[in-house]
Amino acid sequence: MSSDPELEKIEKLFKPRTIAVIGASRNIAKVGGTLLKNILANGFEGKVYAVNPEAKEIMGVPSYPSVLDIPDEIDHAVITVPADKVPEVVEETGKKGVKVVSIITSGFKETGRADLEEKIVEIAKKHGVRILGPNIFGVVYTPTNLNATFGPEKVLKGKIAFLTQSGALGIALMAWTAMEGIGLSSIVSLGNMADIDPIDLGKFFEKDDNTKVIAMYLEGISSGRGQQFLSEFRKISKSKPVIALKAGRSERGTKAISSHTGSLAGSDSMYDSAFKQAGILRANDVEQLFDWAKMLASVDSFDLKGKGFVIITNGGGMGVMATDAAEANGLPLLEMTDDLKQQFRKSMPWFGSPNNPIDLTGQASANSYESAIKTALENDVITGAVVMYCEVGFLDPIELARKISYSLKTYNIKKKPVNVVMLGGEKTREAARMLDREGIPSYSIPERAVSSMAAFYRYALFRTGKSSLQ
Amino acid sequence: MSSDPELEKIEKLFKPRTIAVIGASRNIAKVGGTLLKNILANGFEGKVYAVNPEAKEIMGVPSYPSVLDIPDEIDHAVITVPADKVPEVVEETGKKGVKVVSIITSGFKETGRADLEEKIVEIAKKHGVRILGPNIFGVVYTPTNLNATFGPEKVLKGKIAFLTQSGALGIALMAWTAMEGIGLSSIVSLGNMADIDPIDLGKFFEKDDNTKVIAMYLEGISSGRGQQFLSEFRKISKSKPVIALKAGRSERGTKAISSHTGSLAGSDSMYDSAFKQAGILRANDVEQLFDWAKMLASVDSFDLKGKGFVIITNGGGMGVMATDAAEANGLPLLEMTDDLKQQFRKSMPWFGSPNNPIDLTGQASANSYESAIKTALENDVITGAVVMYCEVGFLDPIELARKISYSLKTYNIKKKPVNVVMLGGEKTREAARMLDREGIPSYSIPERAVSSMAAFYRYALFRTGKSSLQ
Repeated sequence: MSSDPELEKIEKLFKPRTIAVIGASRNIAKVGGTLLKNILANGFEGKVYAVNPEAKEIMGVPSYPSVLDIPDEIDHAVITVPADKVPEVVEETGKKGVKVVSIITSGFKETGRADLEEKIVEIAKKHGVRILGPNIFGVVYTPTNLNATFGPEKVLKGKIAFLTQSGALGIALMAWTAMEGIGLSSIVSLGNMADIDPIDLGKFFEKDDNTKVIAMYLEGISSGRGQQFLSEFRKISKSKPVIALKAGRSERGTKAISSHTGSLAGSDSMYDSAFKQAGILRANDVEQLFDWAKMLASVDSFDLKGKGFVIITNGGGMGVMATDAAEANGLPLLEMTDDLKQQFRKSMPWFGSPNNPIDLTGQASANSYESAIKTALENDVITGAVVMYCEVGFLDPIELARKISYSLKTYNIKKKPVNVVMLGGEKTREAARMLDREGIPSYSIPERAVSSMAAFYRYALFRTGKSSLQ
Repeated sequence: MSSDPELEKIEKLFKPRTIAVIGASRNIAKVGGTLLKNILANGFEGKVYAVNPEAKEIMGVPSYPSVLDIPDEIDHAVITVPADKVPEVVEETGKKGVKVVSIITSGFKETGRADLEEKIVEIAKKHGVRILGPNIFGVVYTPTNLNATFGPEKVLKGKIAFLTQSGALGIALMAWTAMEGIGLSSIVSLGNMADIDPIDLGKFFEKDDNTKVIAMYLEGISSGRGQQFLSEFRKISKSKPVIALKAGRSERGTKAISSHTGSLAGSDSMYDSAFKQAGILRANDVEQLFDWAKMLASVDSFDLKGKGFVIITNGGGMGVMATDAAEANGLPLLEMTDDLKQQFRKSMPWFGSPNNPIDLTGQASANSYESAIKTALENDVITGAVVMYCEVGFLDPIELARKISYSLKTYNIKKKPVNVVMLGGEKTREAARMLDREGIPSYSIPERAVSSMAAFYRYALFRTGKSSLQ
């Protein structure tokens, strides 16, 4: 894939031909057991080996006393042995010619053993082995069916790569994203970032065809890498959207970071301006990070055409809330011409409103939506649409979701950005997940959909070098 | 309940001894059919009558040609007949001595028929009948098992009264709140507010023992009622928390309101200062409205004791995010003394952090949480706690939810405010719903829990007349 030898090693994290779990166990209560189980349960494409001096076979996988004994080349070795054994094991992976190791083990810099961490970095460097971690829960890459983590077994496939500097958060989000219908290409636990950091990973994901958006939870950037972070991400974000949730906005939060990961957090305003320069969108919380990511992963074009966005709704109140949110988020709403109003009038009863928000009324049918969506997609003056539904007895949410999906497939030949609000109970939630699975981003409330559309808009302006529509 | 005769009539909306559905139908595709079905399906305590000239009985309920023919007094009549028949029907309810009518029918002021609306108000006034609506989806009051709406059949019982000026939104939220585990005492569709408005309802809910929090979605206040709104709610909010989501923050949103409900929306800054004076908390969106409402409905004391709040977490990253949110929301976090740190150390492994956020680490067990919660509840210096959980393999969320529930029942004798973050997949969501059902407010992400705790804190300051802790 790449002619850069270092990037090729990073690539082996995700697309190894062979993987070895060093410290593998048949006990799934142990990290080395869960990890091997997760690799096998997901149908990983490559070959799997175990390293454990006390077994010949674990979970059907051949096991060897040392990585050096494996009768095959090893691309990626996962290390789960105790901290004091890690230097020796890294030395062996170096001798073996392993390209990259992910070190799950904790007990390094984060617990005061910076010395042990420096030692393993030194050994790895000597042999040209790249290190992810230590102190991580592992790596997921869904295109190769690789789940080399001790987190949940199942991850939903998709186009968002997620890098996280917090372990517990990352594991919780593996389960949360699956529940929320958010598809991921990758999850990378960054841990102590002794070697591989977001810059290396950003370069990989920039070129990775399976990834459309890079989302990150960061607490700090590796010291001395600030300038490089800026210049590399400025390039990366021109080809793919990058969204960061940077914790430590507050003074007290910054202090909490130093007791958590030991990162030098830096001032928040510094990060704010760095992200702006680098074209990185900054999210405020986890929900927003993934709200934006799924919106940006859904679009196939960042060209901005037309003169503004439209809001289509079956609830007047939701329309007002979306309008408020559009102004608060800087999303330009279209001023409707009489001609356009006339066209939208066909999709609604006489007491509807063809102004923007376009109110189809609580009596709107799935066909009313189809007709309004078609009008929005076919008119060149319309940039994109936020389509909203309040659960009412007159219209079944599942029927509507099918119709929205059909309408976008049929009429969205200009690849306009569209997202959907589905506000209601369990059935509406099910309909929302249907849309998400088809790559149509859905949201529970108007504000989250509008904020996500505005994130698309800001990114599209950045990417095209425009300052606003027109 | 009240010696105010007008308030007694309002009370009959919610606690009628008898209710009549005028325009009842056996066809549940019709409003008069769904409505009667919903009243019967929920086991309403009082007597139910139908009015329909073409039937002697509908769904097992006796039916009469006119309300005047019913051989019983009628407290509350629900009117679902076409708009042009409404004046005649209101006249009949007046002659019958009905206390209050809820007029579901639309086609009045909101569609340009202000004349017809004035006419029914005049007739009702003449007879002393109070009107809810017109143009509403109805009324729910869970303590009497009354669901006189054409919305969903089931509503979760609880202590929040919700008033809404948007119909479609209100119906969607009936289903949404049930799904989210948010219990309601009442839902009132305000419609055109030809007569009964939030002031009348606020006075009722202030005295209603089944309601702990009043939550409202508003687009505007009835013209000429601004001063009274302010003075009445200043009193109401001193005895119960009142939260409002006021749409129309933006200029364009205000315009959208006039085409939606025809309300004079007024400038947003005017509402902002009015709400502040009246002690009404202003929420930004629907999720926040109910996030705050369920927090405020959960507490039994608004006394503020101690010197600050603590955050208890099993994920360092979540701790940092909560800390950032505390600063952003003005929630004071406790500065930990050495003695207190020593006490919390007992709940964590050696690499945990007893600073605030209190990091129990990803290895925390349910017992670690119990011990930390006990410490937080028993120390007088601690005002309240945000307890957070990231789903990790080591600790089952259901087991944790049970333990949190047990711990609060056992140790929260000082009635401190506590809320919970449960971040993870389906199982964690199930555990969160368990907590909600037991009146322990749970949230999906740290920011929402902290924002809700801060809403409690602001309200408690307002109520106690303090300006800050200490």
